[in-house]
Amino acid sequence: MSNSTFGMVFTKSGVPMDRQEFNFPDLKQGELLVKIKYATICGSDLHTYQGFRQTPVPTILGHEIIGEIAEFPTGDVLQDYYGNNLKLGDRITWSIAASCGECHYCKIGVSQKCVNLFKYGHEKISDEHPLSGGYAEYCHLAKGTTIVKISDQLPNKVIGPANCATATTAAAFRVGGDCAGKVVIIQGSGMLGLTACAMASSLGARKVIALDIDKDRLVLASKFGATETILIEGDNADVINKIKNITDAYMGDLIIEMSGISKSVELGLNLLSIGGHIVFVGSVFTQPDVQINPESIVRGVFNIHGMHNYIPEDLATGITFLENNHKIYPFEKLVSSEFQLQDVEAAFQHSIATKAFRVAIKTD
Amino acid sequence: MSNSTFGMVFTKSGVPMDRQEFNFPDLKQGELLVKIKYATICGSDLHTYQGFRQTPVPTILGHEIIGEIAEFPTGDVLQDYYGNNLKLGDRITWSIAASCGECHYCKIGVSQKCVNLFKYGHEKISDEHPLSGGYAEYCHLAKGTTIVKISDQLPNKVIGPANCATATTAAAFRVGGDCAGKVVIIQGSGMLGLTACAMASSLGARKVIALDIDKDRLVLASKFGATETILIEGDNADVINKIKNITDAYMGDLIIEMSGISKSVELGLNLLSIGGHIVFVGSVFTQPDVQINPESIVRGVFNIHGMHNYIPEDLATGITFLENNHKIYPFEKLVSSEFQLQDVEAAFQHSIATKAFRVAIKTD
Repeated sequence: MSNSTFGMVFTKSGVPMDRQEFNFPDLKQGELLVKIKYATICGSDLHTYQGFRQTPVPTILGHEIIGEIAEFPTGDVLQDYYGNNLKLGDRITWSIAASCGECHYCKIGVSQKCVNLFKYGHEKISDEHPLSGGYAEYCHLAKGTTIVKISDQLPNKVIGPANCATATTAAAFRVGGDCAGKVVIIQGSGMLGLTACAMASSLGARKVIALDIDKDRLVLASKFGATETILIEGDNADVINKIKNITDAYMGDLIIEMSGISKSVELGLNLLSIGGHIVFVGSVFTQPDVQINPESIVRGVFNIHGMHNYIPEDLATGITFLENNHKIYPFEKLVSSEFQLQDVEAAFQHSIATKAFRVAIKTD
Repeated sequence: MSNSTFGMVFTKSGVPMDRQEFNFPDLKQGELLVKIKYATICGSDLHTYQGFRQTPVPTILGHEIIGEIAEFPTGDVLQDYYGNNLKLGDRITWSIAASCGECHYCKIGVSQKCVNLFKYGHEKISDEHPLSGGYAEYCHLAKGTTIVKISDQLPNKVIGPANCATATTAAAFRVGGDCAGKVVIIQGSGMLGLTACAMASSLGARKVIALDIDKDRLVLASKFGATETILIEGDNADVINKIKNITDAYMGDLIIEMSGISKSVELGLNLLSIGGHIVFVGSVFTQPDVQINPESIVRGVFNIHGMHNYIPEDLATGITFLENNHKIYPFEKLVSSEFQLQDVEAAFQHSIATKAFRVAIKTD
């Protein structure tokens, strides 16, 4: 390795990301250095880039990353999520954030809310830890990061979004409960929604009903396991009636709301079966409040869950899902184009212009 | 047994319950006849009696019932929840409702919403099945009723409310998840709230915080395991601050809302810890809608559950809880007076006048 490496640094919306050189970090016990091979552009990267979302700056964006282990401290025994030893050159992905394992939230099972959270693609560049994002040559992994070794059989395009889109979707299914033999409704057919359709299908859902405002996305949803699709174009009552017809009025046992739009959240609450679960995933931006009727929730024996990011087991679940299913559902097609690292600006512009599910940055 | 028996029949709010004679039923396979020994007056009985709640009439009210097995069809092998054989004279309680075990809702684990539900104390008297309520000499149990044999060590006053108050509380803890070592907040310190305080305490909660608008009830809550009590007298902000102080700002891991008042539901949603669970139980009457913020639910990784009645395992859990804990917490004191069956009117009037937790009807 040379003495320095580079990353594309984001400072402000409207200002192009800028190539900057960095020294390689001194690795502490539990840390490692990864040679980045591939990083996809997530919706939240675009939001930050466009100024819809604030992040500490300067920073290197990008958190959907895969790479090869380049260095770790002498004497360290490096293990993946499953406890298998890792070695230099292993192809890995890792959790979107490192957590301390010691704080209150880590101990109660919501390590994604760790008080010492270190979140890739969201950290301000510091002297000690400049390389924490995906749009760079190297990423410096913090202690407490969950690592999963990736099979060579899994294409970059499939595994790229695994540690964000796939793992978050797996988290939604974890809290939503078993869906085998059940009616699953997926609100929003973007990257996470399509992944959710495929996951529901692979888990044995009896019906997988995909909803979206874009009919092209619904065509794709059918290829990801949706058994029925509904175009959202009128008011909620119209959709409720369609779901009544499809389900013999039993409605949805598990609903995953991926859009974050309040009207869609309201719709979801009206599509729920007695005893059903709805998981809010998309609501990570400001939207109007939603009215609920507590008596309906009690008499309906409803369960409403919020899911933000995920915990380590969800990453493992997500990757196992991709290993078993990436030839069944066309995940590879969701990454529509690839750019070189120095062309990250063009990649972002292309992603916005084409409304791509994912655009990738290759660092080979 | 004589040829006929009697029950106290409710026809309309404002009209005294009236003694009526009935023939003993012809028992079908799976049914049984119970000689009622004890029946307590639940809040929902009072609501119906006072006209706040509609029920098919004429009916025999009362669903918190214990009794002795008086008859079952020749050849039937009668078993309790645990699969133990039952015999004539056994002291039992049973589920608030019989369910078919065959319908969609029974199959997905919400048998309390069975499409063929037969609910004790809520059924219109019919020629085939006149005796379905607690304020009578006998109760005719339908097929699909969950039966639990009761130890002679459990006093009537303790076990009387088990199949409604205790089992429903157990259901709330089932969906709310493990509370060992956690902060549990109980909103409302009535019969169910006090039971919830004791259950949280017995399950190893680190703190049990009881809330009520009545300070006498809070004094009692301390005897039922509450480690802290908060009198609700100001606005919600005041209570939120108190809970912040008590919990080092981590708030409640498990909140059980027993009051059903919208202001209290709103308060509960503001008392929830990241990753926490809130179970709405009290909202079984009309109240204004409540506003929620989906982004807060997502970022808080919150879980909101509705619980109405319960499923068979909750009855068993509730009774085991009473067996193990009735000497630790003063459940016996919650039944403040006992009346004879023919004096059921006086019992209801007394219950309303004294705001008793429970008043009992003895049928010995």
